[in-house]
Amino acid sequence: MTGTTQDDYTDRYARRVRGMTTSEIRALFAVTSRPEVVSLAGGSPFIAALPLDAVGEMMGKLASEMGTTSLQYGIGQGTIELRERICEVMALSGIDASTGASPDDVVVTVGGQQALDLVARLFLDPGDVVLAEGPTYVGALGVFQAAQAQVRHVAMDADGLIPAALEAAIAQSGGRAKFLYTIPTFQNPTGVTLTEERREQILDICERHGLLVVEDDPYGTLSFEGEAPRPLRARKRTGILYLSTFSKTFAPGLRVGWILAPHAVREKLVMASEANILCPSAFAQGAVTQYLATMPWREQIKIYRQVYAERRDALLDALRDMMPTGTTWTHPNGGLFVWATLPPGLDSKAMLPRAVAARVAYVPGTGFYADGNGTGNIRLNFSFPPPDRIREGVRRLSGVMEQELAMRAVFGPTTTPHHRRGPAAADTPGPDLA
Amino acid sequence: MTGTTQDDYTDRYARRVRGMTTSEIRALFAVTSRPEVVSLAGGSPFIAALPLDAVGEMMGKLASEMGTTSLQYGIGQGTIELRERICEVMALSGIDASTGASPDDVVVTVGGQQALDLVARLFLDPGDVVLAEGPTYVGALGVFQAAQAQVRHVAMDADGLIPAALEAAIAQSGGRAKFLYTIPTFQNPTGVTLTEERREQILDICERHGLLVVEDDPYGTLSFEGEAPRPLRARKRTGILYLSTFSKTFAPGLRVGWILAPHAVREKLVMASEANILCPSAFAQGAVTQYLATMPWREQIKIYRQVYAERRDALLDALRDMMPTGTTWTHPNGGLFVWATLPPGLDSKAMLPRAVAARVAYVPGTGFYADGNGTGNIRLNFSFPPPDRIREGVRRLSGVMEQELAMRAVFGPTTTPHHRRGPAAADTPGPDLA
Repeated sequence: MTGTTQDDYTDRYARRVRGMTTSEIRALFAVTSRPEVVSLAGGSPFIAALPLDAVGEMMGKLASEMGTTSLQYGIGQGTIELRERICEVMALSGIDASTGASPDDVVVTVGGQQALDLVARLFLDPGDVVLAEGPTYVGALGVFQAAQAQVRHVAMDADGLIPAALEAAIAQSGGRAKFLYTIPTFQNPTGVTLTEERREQILDICERHGLLVVEDDPYGTLSFEGEAPRPLRARKRTGILYLSTFSKTFAPGLRVGWILAPHAVREKLVMASEANILCPSAFAQGAVTQYLATMPWREQIKIYRQVYAERRDALLDALRDMMPTGTTWTHPNGGLFVWATLPPGLDSKAMLPRAVAARVAYVPGTGFYADGNGTGNIRLNFSFPPPDRIREGVRRLSGVMEQELAMRAVFGPTTTPHHRRGPAAADTPGPDLA
Repeated sequence: MTGTTQDDYTDRYARRVRGMTTSEIRALFAVTSRPEVVSLAGGSPFIAALPLDAVGEMMGKLASEMGTTSLQYGIGQGTIELRERICEVMALSGIDASTGASPDDVVVTVGGQQALDLVARLFLDPGDVVLAEGPTYVGALGVFQAAQAQVRHVAMDADGLIPAALEAAIAQSGGRAKFLYTIPTFQNPTGVTLTEERREQILDICERHGLLVVEDDPYGTLSFEGEAPRPLRARKRTGILYLSTFSKTFAPGLRVGWILAPHAVREKLVMASEANILCPSAFAQGAVTQYLATMPWREQIKIYRQVYAERRDALLDALRDMMPTGTTWTHPNGGLFVWATLPPGLDSKAMLPRAVAARVAYVPGTGFYADGNGTGNIRLNFSFPPPDRIREGVRRLSGVMEQELAMRAVFGPTTTPHHRRGPAAADTPGPDLA
């Protein structure tokens, strides 16, 4: 028995495996977790802001006093107790009984990622088209690529998705667009929020073309100045799948998210989830339920808002003080991210190893596009590092950029041959934006 | 806006949705969880046998003292700490460094179900063939159906999978079989264990035909009389994906399972899992790691063995004392299940509502076949109900069966028109078995 032939599985994989690639963010994880590196990559919440002693006490009781249910199997849809609490959370954003939201139409998922994956399973055949903001969430691109779907990016500016660009994308897709995937509020990676007026326009366009909307809303409650515009789902009860998660408002380590779906779709989602994971963790669900039932979760969201607002300010101030001329960036009113556009000629992917050598990390913009765009962009996270680290990170980053620019002045472009810039930072429309 | 047209999603679903059906087990869940029903359905471990106070204390500390990592995001493959512990668990069954097992080739999953689903994603295109025992795990059938694969059942008897039947199935599949899915030890639903001799024969056949083996081993450590035969993976290091879970030896409510895969496959599995769930729960992984590191987990497995052995005896004794003539059943040496074959003419699915009315539940055999077989079979679980409830459940069940037989004697068959019996109970080969 040689064994070696059976170690080569290349000709056995399913076709969808060809579309699978490691996310650039995840590939960075090992490097950026070194303590000497200031990581402006990642999208981790600042867990230390939680009352960990109280959470620990609650989790301990959940196992010791309720272990025979919290450590046991549950049902595929998720517990009714948690689904009721989820409806309370959604009501904060105006998604309530008056808009048809009901615990019966909620499916509990393994974080927002499984929510996305279930939607893809239900609706995407190979070759189908998905419309999505350009740039968009890297994990969504991974899901759509694994589903062998084609992503067509729809341009955005400082007001979010551009309605005319959506109309054009629908027309170009020739009826093959299965849904619009959108993060209307404090978008990942840009931090941009779709305006009130455009929300209505986007909904009208989708309604007119019978296009399903997948609204991803992990950040909507994390607003820094007043409340964010109401979600699309709060304005319209049909034709929308609404996705969210407790990863940004409580704890990502529990992996609890959800989908609010039209009833017919909800049944299919539960079947798809059962085939995928049998049932979500009863313990994680119990933890979130207890957290919402017994702890001041609304106040905790306010704490997160304050912490992140302070860090957003630190990042914006540092960028303003230190970025080389020609750099632009977004000014988010909430969420976790700023999207920056580098001065012409700089390649964010080519520059990354030098940035890491200078002990600062970011995510190159290309990770957020399915089409190779984004080489001139970077995503900067401000939720995890404290203000002084953020400032130090920007200092290091600007040093690397100055060096790159100096090298470029002497030796010419050091970028990859097919350098393409993505749409400019959304609050300062660049030449590529209509 | 009428809204009603957008509530009909029938023409939008992906093709794979056609293959999705609710598992008969899950559909029963609501009914069988009523306290007055003796449920011999389900496959839940007896969580009350765990030291819940100590588990609670451990979980509390995990959040309060280690919250900034245990409640945070992690990496897609799972923590190195847990993967090292998993290697210790596998070493109990002879899967150790000498057989090439390494933490680097372990992928942590959301229970055994996600492990199966990831394997299907990696290897199954629509129309591909999967070979599996007949009957087999209902959740695996759900995965293969969602992947639009065809399941071809391979006959088994009291010694497990029949080698000649596997040879014949491979020949009939004409090269379209992607892998053999097998639960060699204390199989679900039959409780049957593949003999030592046949393990070698099955491995030889798969090696000769270049057929990948997916070995599912959730029950292997739960043996009642001595140790079970070593897993297939302990005998051969190539061409095997080994799947297991902590759901039966610790707690299913945490949803932690794993895959040990050849290195090249492991990389793809991690990518598929990241697209599916981003990363497994850091908290659940921490809980299992702490459990394995600080609590007497080997002794706990012995406790589970004792509890289940006693209940297995209670079930076998009750069946012997009370079942109508013509009923046969398996005699498992471990695991959670007994598989019974009803007297000729009885239809397990048709009989189920009458059984539930008599306050006893089981799983009809049809759930464990992709081809409509199993109408004459039922699966009985002995891990969850205590001995006296098991005896009471069998008493109620035999009453229902006697009534059915009496009705049949008077009015003729009450079964569905296309009544087909599955292979007889594996320890008493019936007429359909070669």
